[in-house]
Amino acid sequence: MKNADVVILGGMSGIIAGISCKRHYPDKSVILIRKEGTVLVPCGIPYIFGTIGSPEKNVIPDGLLESSGIELIKGEAVEADRTKKVVMLRDGETIGYKKLVFATGSLPLVPPIPGVDKKNVFAVRKDINYLTKLLEQLGKVKDVVIIGGGFIGMEFADECRKNRDVNITVIEMLPHCLQVAMDDEFCVEAESALAETGVSILTNEKVEAILGDDAVTSVKLASGKEVKADLVILGIGAIPNTDLAKKTGLELGFRNAIKVDRHMQTLTAEDIFACGDCAERFSFFDGRPSGVMLASIATTEARIAGANLFSPTHYNIGTISVFSTVINGKAFAVAGLTERDARKSGSEIVIGEASAPDTHPAGMPGSNPVKLKLIFAKDTGILLGGGLSGGKSVGEMVNVISACIAHRMTANDIVMFQMGTHPALTASPILYPLVNVACKCVMSLKPY
Amino acid sequence: MKNADVVILGGMSGIIAGISCKRHYPDKSVILIRKEGTVLVPCGIPYIFGTIGSPEKNVIPDGLLESSGIELIKGEAVEADRTKKVVMLRDGETIGYKKLVFATGSLPLVPPIPGVDKKNVFAVRKDINYLTKLLEQLGKVKDVVIIGGGFIGMEFADECRKNRDVNITVIEMLPHCLQVAMDDEFCVEAESALAETGVSILTNEKVEAILGDDAVTSVKLASGKEVKADLVILGIGAIPNTDLAKKTGLELGFRNAIKVDRHMQTLTAEDIFACGDCAERFSFFDGRPSGVMLASIATTEARIAGANLFSPTHYNIGTISVFSTVINGKAFAVAGLTERDARKSGSEIVIGEASAPDTHPAGMPGSNPVKLKLIFAKDTGILLGGGLSGGKSVGEMVNVISACIAHRMTANDIVMFQMGTHPALTASPILYPLVNVACKCVMSLKPY
Repeated sequence: MKNADVVILGGMSGIIAGISCKRHYPDKSVILIRKEGTVLVPCGIPYIFGTIGSPEKNVIPDGLLESSGIELIKGEAVEADRTKKVVMLRDGETIGYKKLVFATGSLPLVPPIPGVDKKNVFAVRKDINYLTKLLEQLGKVKDVVIIGGGFIGMEFADECRKNRDVNITVIEMLPHCLQVAMDDEFCVEAESALAETGVSILTNEKVEAILGDDAVTSVKLASGKEVKADLVILGIGAIPNTDLAKKTGLELGFRNAIKVDRHMQTLTAEDIFACGDCAERFSFFDGRPSGVMLASIATTEARIAGANLFSPTHYNIGTISVFSTVINGKAFAVAGLTERDARKSGSEIVIGEASAPDTHPAGMPGSNPVKLKLIFAKDTGILLGGGLSGGKSVGEMVNVISACIAHRMTANDIVMFQMGTHPALTASPILYPLVNVACKCVMSLKPY
Repeated sequence: MKNADVVILGGMSGIIAGISCKRHYPDKSVILIRKEGTVLVPCGIPYIFGTIGSPEKNVIPDGLLESSGIELIKGEAVEADRTKKVVMLRDGETIGYKKLVFATGSLPLVPPIPGVDKKNVFAVRKDINYLTKLLEQLGKVKDVVIIGGGFIGMEFADECRKNRDVNITVIEMLPHCLQVAMDDEFCVEAESALAETGVSILTNEKVEAILGDDAVTSVKLASGKEVKADLVILGIGAIPNTDLAKKTGLELGFRNAIKVDRHMQTLTAEDIFACGDCAERFSFFDGRPSGVMLASIATTEARIAGANLFSPTHYNIGTISVFSTVINGKAFAVAGLTERDARKSGSEIVIGEASAPDTHPAGMPGSNPVKLKLIFAKDTGILLGGGLSGGKSVGEMVNVISACIAHRMTANDIVMFQMGTHPALTASPILYPLVNVACKCVMSLKPY
C-alpha cells in the first residue's frame, strides 16, 4: 500500500490544490489521482472546434505537477474509507492519506429528453477522446442543433461555424440566450452578434424530443416546430460530480455539492477538503449557495483548500462570480449581480450606464466602443455588479470591477478611482466608463 | 461686470471640475475661462505626429461644457483679486466669483541649454497652433533629436518615425530611458522595442548645447559627441503653471505647485480651490509631495475639487500613480511604487515575477506574453506596486493592480483574487499573473 500526506482526487482544481499545498507545506507528500489521461483547459473546450482546431492544443501540461513534486497516479478512485483513511482504485491499489481532497469537478447535465441517447447527440464532457469524436463528426454533418443558449452553447455555436459549411441552430428555453448570466440588453447584443454569423437562434423554445432512427435526424420542439439536425450538442449546464463523495459519507448540499466551510474543509470530516465544481459554493453577497460554475472560481477555491490543509489561513469570502465571453469578436462580461439578480433579491438599487471608445481619441486604430452598466445598492452606495460589452479590454476591465466589488466600494469611492489611461490602450481619463458611471450615479445615491 | 457662483481657470482639468461641480450643484452658475481656442487631449499629443496624423483629431469637444450648462469664456485671466473676489481678463473684462478654481495645468520645462531658442527647437506645448507648426516642420526634416527619454520622449520617438523617412535619436541623461517611472528590466525592454524601429538611443548623455546658426544643425553632448539635427524636441518634463496663482498670493509648495488640502481647497483662501498639474500632489504611500503629472490624476483631482466646492465630501487619498505606454506595439505599465522607489524609501520588500500568455491556451490568435512584477511590503504583506509589459490588455490589468493597491490588499488577499478569465481575453485561471505572483510571494511574506 502506498501512502501520502495528501491525496487529491480530480482534474484541474486538483492540480491547483496540489501546487498550493506544496507551496505552503513543501515537506508534505502529495499524490494526485485521476481517471483522465490528460486534463483539458475547461474554458478552452468550445475553442477546440474552431479557433484552436484540436483537443491536443487545449491541455493542461502535467509538467506542472512534476515541477511541483506532486506524484500523479492515473487511475479511478472507486472508494474512500474514512476510518482507515485510504482510497481504493479500480485496479485494486490502495493509497493511504492524512488529508484527502475532493476536486472531482462536474459532469454535463444530460436532460431526460426522449432520444437523448441517439447517435450524434453529444454532451460537453471534459474528455479528450469523446471531444475528438465530436470534432470528427462535426466535419461530416450539415445541420447542427445546440440545445441551451448559455455561455457554452453560444460559444460552441460561434466556434462550430468557423471554417465549416454547416447550419447551426441554438435552442433556448428562456426569452433570451445568456439570460441567467447577463441583463437583457447585453443578451440582445450577444444574440445579434451571433445571428450576424448566420447562426439561427430560437428562444422561448423547449425541446420535446430528439428524433431519428439510430442517429439523430431532427429536434422536435414543444411549439410544434421541427429543426433538421444530424448532430446535437447539449449545452444546458453541469452538475457536481459527487458520487464517490456520497459513497464516502460526505454530507451533500445544494445540487448535491459537497458541504464545506469557508476554509474548504468538509462539514463531515476534518481531514477531508473539497474544492471546485464538486464543492458547495456561496455567494459573496448573501452567503447563500450558488450554482455558478467557472474555472476561475474553481482555481481560487483550490488555492484556498491547498493552503488550508494543515493550518487554515485562507478564508473564502464567497463567489462574486466574474465571467467573460466573446461572441463573433465582441466581448461580454459580468461581475457580481445583474440588475435582474439584484431586483430578485429585493435590493433597492441605482443603475447607471455609460459608453466610451476603448482608445482615445476614438480615431486611434483598433478602437472599440465599450458599454458599461453598474448596479449600486441605494441605501449604502455599494457596488453590487457590473455588465460590459466591447473589445478585448473588457476581459480585464471586468476584473477591475471585481476588485471594486470585493472591497465593497461605493459610487463615491469609484468616482475617485485612480486608473491609468493611454491613447492606444484605454478610454480617455474624461470618459473612463467605470468612473463615469459612478459619477452619474453619485447624486441619486446621496445621502448615504 | 459678469458674475458666476464658480469661476474656473484652465483647460482639461477645468472642464472636468466644471462638470463635477454642475453634477453636485446643478443650480450654481459656472464660467470656465481659458486662453486656448481648443483643448487638446493631453496624452494624445505624441500620437498627433504618427497614428492620429493631425492635432484637430485630438481635441476635447467643448460640447461637454455646453451640455453641462457651463459658460465658456475664451480669454486670458491676468489677475485675481481675492478681496473683491473678481478675475480680470486681458481685454479688461472682470468676472466676479463666489468660488474660484485654479486648473491652469503645467508648462513644458525648457532647460537653460545654450541654443535652446534656435529655430526648429520645439517644446511640447499643449497649443494646437504650435503643434501644427511642429507637425509641418517634421515633414521637412531628416534628422530629429529628442532630448529626454521619459514617456513623452519615447512616445514622440515612436510616433515621429511612423510614415516618415527620418533619423531619430533619443538622448537621455540617466542610464536608462523611462528610468524615473519603471524598473530597469522594463526600461531595457522598452529601449529594445524602440531600437528595433531604427531609433537611436543614447543614454548617460547630457546635452551641452544646441548648435546652428538661425536654425538648429546639431546637438552637442557633454561626452564630446555631436548628433546631427535639423529638428529638436524637448521632452524633459513639465512644471506647474502657477504664475497667476503666485500673483494672487496663493501659497506655493513643491516645485511651485499651489498648496492644497485633501479636499483640493487651497491652504491660503477658503473660496479658492486648485486641481490638476498646477496643484500640489501627495503620494498615496507616504503623503509626501509628488511630482508625477498624468492626465488621469488631474481628472481625479478635478472631480474631487468640483464636488467639494460648496460642501466638502470627496477626500483625496493621494496619488498611487498609475500609467501605461506603448512602444513599437508593446505595452508597458506601472501602478504604485517601483522596486527602485520602494528601496529608496527604505521599505523592506518582497518581489515576485511571473509571465503568462494573455490568452489561453497560448495558441489562441493574437496572444501576447505578459510579464508582471509585484512589490510587497515585507512586514505587512501589503501590495506597494506593480510593473507590467505585454499586449493591449496591460492597459486595464494595471488598473486591476491600482484597485488592489488602493485597498492595501496583501499577497494573501491577492492569492484569492476573483478574476474572470476567458480563452480569447485573458491568461488562464491557472496562470493569471496577478494571482500567480502573489502565490509565489506569499511564503516569503509569512508570517505577517
